[in-house]
Amino acid sequence: MSFINHWLRPSILAASAYSTPPADGLLKLDAMESPFALADDLSAKYLTHLAKAELNRYPNPNASELQKTLRELMNIPDEFGLLLGNGSDELIQLLALACDSEATILSVEPSFVMYNLVAKSTHLNYVGVNLDADFQLDLPKIQAAIKTHQPKLIFIAYPNNPTGNSFERQSVEKIITATDALVVLDEAYYAYSADSFLADIAKFPNLVVLRTVSKIGFAGLRLGLLIGSKSTISELDKLRLPYNINTLTQISAEFLLQQKDQIDKNAQIILAERKRVFASLNALNNLRAYPSDANFILFKTPNAQGLFDYLKANKILIKNLTNSPKLQNCLRVTIGNYEQNQQFLSAVKTFQKG
Amino acid sequence: MSFINHWLRPSILAASAYSTPPADGLLKLDAMESPFALADDLSAKYLTHLAKAELNRYPNPNASELQKTLRELMNIPDEFGLLLGNGSDELIQLLALACDSEATILSVEPSFVMYNLVAKSTHLNYVGVNLDADFQLDLPKIQAAIKTHQPKLIFIAYPNNPTGNSFERQSVEKIITATDALVVLDEAYYAYSADSFLADIAKFPNLVVLRTVSKIGFAGLRLGLLIGSKSTISELDKLRLPYNINTLTQISAEFLLQQKDQIDKNAQIILAERKRVFASLNALNNLRAYPSDANFILFKTPNAQGLFDYLKANKILIKNLTNSPKLQNCLRVTIGNYEQNQQFLSAVKTFQKG
Repeated sequence: MSFINHWLRPSILAASAYSTPPADGLLKLDAMESPFALADDLSAKYLTHLAKAELNRYPNPNASELQKTLRELMNIPDEFGLLLGNGSDELIQLLALACDSEATILSVEPSFVMYNLVAKSTHLNYVGVNLDADFQLDLPKIQAAIKTHQPKLIFIAYPNNPTGNSFERQSVEKIITATDALVVLDEAYYAYSADSFLADIAKFPNLVVLRTVSKIGFAGLRLGLLIGSKSTISELDKLRLPYNINTLTQISAEFLLQQKDQIDKNAQIILAERKRVFASLNALNNLRAYPSDANFILFKTPNAQGLFDYLKANKILIKNLTNSPKLQNCLRVTIGNYEQNQQFLSAVKTFQKG
Repeated sequence: MSFINHWLRPSILAASAYSTPPADGLLKLDAMESPFALADDLSAKYLTHLAKAELNRYPNPNASELQKTLRELMNIPDEFGLLLGNGSDELIQLLALACDSEATILSVEPSFVMYNLVAKSTHLNYVGVNLDADFQLDLPKIQAAIKTHQPKLIFIAYPNNPTGNSFERQSVEKIITATDALVVLDEAYYAYSADSFLADIAKFPNLVVLRTVSKIGFAGLRLGLLIGSKSTISELDKLRLPYNINTLTQISAEFLLQQKDQIDKNAQIILAERKRVFASLNALNNLRAYPSDANFILFKTPNAQGLFDYLKANKILIKNLTNSPKLQNCLRVTIGNYEQNQQFLSAVKTFQKG
C-alpha cells in the first residue's frame, strides 16, 4: 500500500476526482459557456491594453480597479461589500471554511454539485432536500430540515442549475427569514433571469449573493463575486488567500467587462434563442422541455441516453443527466448562437425520426 | 452587533486580514519579485500567442500543455506527479484540507507565515519550533515536537524565508525519516539555491516539493506546483477545485516559461548581485548580513526601524521584520537589478553616515 493510502483521510480516498468529458472537436453545448468570442477589433485593443501587465510583480491584492468595473457592470451599490474569487468555486470553499468543522451545509437536490463537493473537502456535513415534482422548493420539507439540521450555510442557486428555473421568490424569502444560517443566493445565471436578490442584501443581514462572469462570455477568466453587507464581506475577506486574482485576470477583466453594451446585447441574443429552442423542443413528440431562466434548457425524453449518444456521434456535446436519480431521462443543453442551436435541433429531429 | 459577528467562528473574527503595505511610486524590494520585465520583442510575440485564448470557454481543467512546459523548465521527471495551484498558497491550503480537522501542522519559526495562517483557516493546529541562533534546524527540539504533537504535515521552506539560508540537508533527511507526516519541502527559491529535494521524492514516499514561478519573473501569473509520487499527487488532486488555473495563465505560462535560457540568465544575474550586495552590506559597520541561498538577504542592524523609515522616505520599500520577536532589528531586502541594488546600498550608506 502506498504512503498516501494510509495518510489521506478516508472520505477523500473514497471520492472520485471531478471529471469533465473530453470535448475536442465537438460543438460544446454542455457547460453553459457563452458562444460569443471577442470581436476582432476589441481583441486587438484588449491585447494592447494587456501589454501593460507587469508579470514580474505580484497582482494588486485587492483588485481595486477590477472591483470598480464589476460594480458598474452589475450595478452593485457602493454600500455593499464585494469579495472576488478565482471562480465562484473558490468562494463556495471560502464560505465553507468560515464555518466550524462538522457544521452543516443545506441545499436542494438536484442543484449545483459543488456545494456538496466542497462540504466534503472542508469537513462539513451536507444535507440536500429534494425539490418537488415541478423542481420548485418544497418549503415544508426545507423548514423541517432547517429545524432538524440547524445548517450554518444554505445555498440556493437562483436560477437553479441543472433545472433552469428560478424558485418562487416568496419561498426563498421565507427560508432567509426562517434561519440563522448565512443564506447564499447563487446567481451564476443572473444575466438570463428577470429577478435577483442583489437589492435584498440591504434587507436581510444573513443574505449574500454569488455571481460569476463565466456565463456571460468569460469562463476562461475564472472570476467569481461574493456580494454582501460591508461588515459581512470585510470579515469573510480574512479567509481569502492574498493575490487570489492574478494580474492577467485583473487587467483583462477591467478592460473587457467595460463593454457593458456588448455583454447586454449578447445576453439578449441568448434570451431570444432560448425562447426559440424551448418552443422547438416542446413542439417535438415525446419530449418535454422545462421552462428556463438561465442560458440552458433541461429536457426529458424517453430514450435520453440514446439521444445523447447520437448527438455525440454527430459531434454535439450536451450534458447527460440520466444517471442522476432525480433526473432520469433528462438532458441539458446550453443555448448557443443561432447556427449552433440549429445544428442541435436538427440532430434531435433526425434522431426522433430515425 | 452585526450578523457576521455572531455567525463567524471566533478565531477568524479575532484574526487580522493579510495586509500588504502600499507601494505606489516606491522601488519594491520587499516581496522577492524578479526585477526583470519581459523583453519588448518577447512581449510582442507573447501577445500574438495570447490572441488565441478563447475566453468564453472554460480553461483546460488539467492544464496539460502547461504541465509539459513546467516539467521541461524545472526538469521534473515523468515518473513524478504534478499538481498546479493558483499560487503555492492554494496548494498549502489544499494540503491542509487533506488532513482531518484538528490535525497538526509543524513548521519552524521564523518561516513563511502562510503555513500558520492556512492552519487557522482550515481548522488545524499549528506548532512552530524555533530555529537555533544561526537560523538552522534545532533537530532535537523538532524530533521532540514530532513525538509530542504527532504532526500530520511538516512544512520546511528550503531555502527558508525570511532568513534566506538552506537548512542542513542531513537534518532535513532525518526529519523526513523520523515522521509519519507528509513532509513538504517548499522550494519557492529553488532557482537561487544549489540544492533541491526534487530527486529525493523517488526515495522518500512521504516527501512532496512545492515550487512557484513567482520568484523567477512571473509573480503576476499566480502559479504554484506540487510535485510528489504519482500515487500521492493523483489522490491529492481530488481536492483541487476544477479549473483552478485560468486560460490566460495557462496560455501565458506555456509560452513564457519556454524561455528557459532567459530565465536561467536572469537567475545568474541575481546570484551575482546577491554576492555583491552581501559583501557590500557586510563591509558596513554595525550591520550583519546573513548568508542567503535565495533572492533576498536578511540583515541586522541596531537601528533597523530607523533605517527602514529612512529608506521608505527615500522611496525604497524593503521588508520590516523588527516586530517579529525572533528577528529584532532585522530587515529583509530583495535582490533587484544592478541599478536598484546600487540605489538601495547607497541609501543605506548615507543613513549610516548621517
